[in-house]
Parts: sequence; structure tokens; C-alpha cells
Amino acid sequence: MTELPIAPVGRIIKNAGAPRVSDDARDELAKVLEETGEKIAADAVKLAKHAGRKTVKASDIEMAIKAL
Amino acid sequence: MTELPIAPVGRIIKNAGAPRVSDDARDELAKVLEETGEKIAADAVKLAKHAGRKTVKASDIEMAIKAL
Repeated sequence: MTELPIAPVGRIIKNAGAPRVSDDARDELAKVLEETGEKIAADAVKLAKHAGRKTVKASDIEMAIKAL
Repeated sequence: MTELPIAPVGRIIKNAGAPRVSDDARDELAKVLEETGEKIAADAVKLAKHAGRKTVKASDIEMAIKAL
């Protein structure tokens, strides 16, 4: 499932100083960021459940990142 | 600089099975993904220059990820 839009990811590469960015580079970085987000989110959901909460909070995201 | 929109990042957390997601959780994950993207992009730009190219390609992104 793809949620992240491609154009903002292309701008991240542009902002890093790229004179030109190929379409496949944008797609690749968007895919990687989406997968990274999915992994962190899955762990954060488990951490919220573990804490007896239905709401995922920033502290769950932060702890999930440390555990990655 | 913030490029990634918050709503799709919120959907990534929702898709991971979160019954509810706090605003600060969305913001936190967006921030982390943006920073991760910036790091990968900066390395990819260097790798493209190293290869004598002005265009950042998917292969630069892939190599930058391996180097992280």
C-alpha cells in the first residue's frame, strides 16, 4: 500500500542539492520511507496496546524508533 | 524544512492497526521520515556527483541506503 505522495519526496532530494532527479529515484526513496514508516508504525501500535491505550501517541513512535 | 504532508503519514499509522492516532504521533513520524529522507538524499547526491552525474538515480538512493 502506498500512502506517501511522490512529489514531496522528489523535493527532499532536490533540497539536498540534486541538480536533477530521475523519476525512479523519487519512487525508490518514497518506497523506502514508506516501508520505514510502516515498520515504526507497527511497533508503535504494539507499544500503545502494551500500555493499555487505543491511541498511538508520539511517545510510542519515539520508543519504536529506538527499538528499530 | 518540512516537505512530507502529515495526513498520509497518519494513514500509515492507521494502516498498521491503530484504533486512534494522536496529532503529535503523526507529526513525530513525519519528522522522523523527513529526516531519514534528507540523510539518504544527501548521500545520494554525493554518490551521483562521485559518478560524474548531475542526475540522481534510483541506484544512488539504493547505495545511500546501504551506507546508512
